[in-house]
Amino acid sequence: MFKLYYTPGTCALASHIALAEAGADYTTERVDFKTNQQNSPQYLEINPKGRVPSLVTDRGILTETPAMLAFIAQSFPQAKLAPLDDIFAFAQAQAFNSYLCSTVHVAHAHRMRGPRWASEESSFADMKRKVPESVGAGFALIERKMLRGPWVMGEAYSICDPYLFTLTQWLGADGVDLATLPRVMDHHQRMAARPAVAKALAEEQG
Amino acid sequence: MFKLYYTPGTCALASHIALAEAGADYTTERVDFKTNQQNSPQYLEINPKGRVPSLVTDRGILTETPAMLAFIAQSFPQAKLAPLDDIFAFAQAQAFNSYLCSTVHVAHAHRMRGPRWASEESSFADMKRKVPESVGAGFALIERKMLRGPWVMGEAYSICDPYLFTLTQWLGADGVDLATLPRVMDHHQRMAARPAVAKALAEEQG
Repeated sequence: MFKLYYTPGTCALASHIALAEAGADYTTERVDFKTNQQNSPQYLEINPKGRVPSLVTDRGILTETPAMLAFIAQSFPQAKLAPLDDIFAFAQAQAFNSYLCSTVHVAHAHRMRGPRWASEESSFADMKRKVPESVGAGFALIERKMLRGPWVMGEAYSICDPYLFTLTQWLGADGVDLATLPRVMDHHQRMAARPAVAKALAEEQG
Repeated sequence: MFKLYYTPGTCALASHIALAEAGADYTTERVDFKTNQQNSPQYLEINPKGRVPSLVTDRGILTETPAMLAFIAQSFPQAKLAPLDDIFAFAQAQAFNSYLCSTVHVAHAHRMRGPRWASEESSFADMKRKVPESVGAGFALIERKMLRGPWVMGEAYSICDPYLFTLTQWLGADGVDLATLPRVMDHHQRMAARPAVAKALAEEQG
């Protein structure tokens, strides 16, 4: 049994979808950013970083989306969510997820989370203006070089797909021209049609 | 046989140390940031992101430090660089490395790489001023909560240790008060005494 702490509209959706795809037995608990619940003493006991997602397992608590996604894939090998028997292919999947985490998500975060990295209002405004370019550059590389199709890793659906879907959800608000990313948008549509994706989205919006 | 593309003073050192610890058969090739070699057509063929590190393997090229570190551990199981037989412990190691990559390294990068996320000189200066606080906060959490001791994951040395060592190397230039991080600095000293660390550092400075 797993318990996922999430906030709607965040990268927690990637792990949520992966749990649903795996057929895992899980519950979810919403963390309210509006009341700063992520920095409440109770939540900091769960995740001292004050972020979502957090995944409560029988063994303890996990954080960090790439690590959680690999763990979900390894916990449910029958769901075939990662190439677990091929360490090079597994590393490629991990590299894709690491790129989303440390480059693409970070670029996106400069739209709303400027105070993590600067102090002046003028800097926050400058960061916001750069987001279409920086997120757009990350996605342009995904479009041209990284998304093999039909799924990220090729014929086999994997833990890369819900993560890409999650960040693609943010592209419109990030000011990226979706028309420049036909393959990414095609991937997004096919993802949206999967029952596990609909289930996770419904659970977050319910 | 592996070939590691690196630049001295970058996070490539983490994978370099891991290769040395594993007893891998590897060569290294330096990428010169001063001449912008990372964005040369030749290097972009190797890594279209224009970053280091890149690891050339018999199967193809890998990028992204957390993925490369896990791959090195899985390629040399006898070196016991990760808890490969325990998926939860492996996920914890991956979570630590993901935190270094997407939070601590990213905070550090705002000292020199402001143009990735903003356009104005005033923003770059503002970002630089924030680095002691943002990198310091990341390391404070490592000091208090994450570094188990004597190694990151406890008694067993792992792929988390060279990565932490690498980012600790940057703390002085980042303006973080080292006296506030006695456990991290103790870890750094014990790392510096390891032959594989000395070998990797010598190869990068040679």
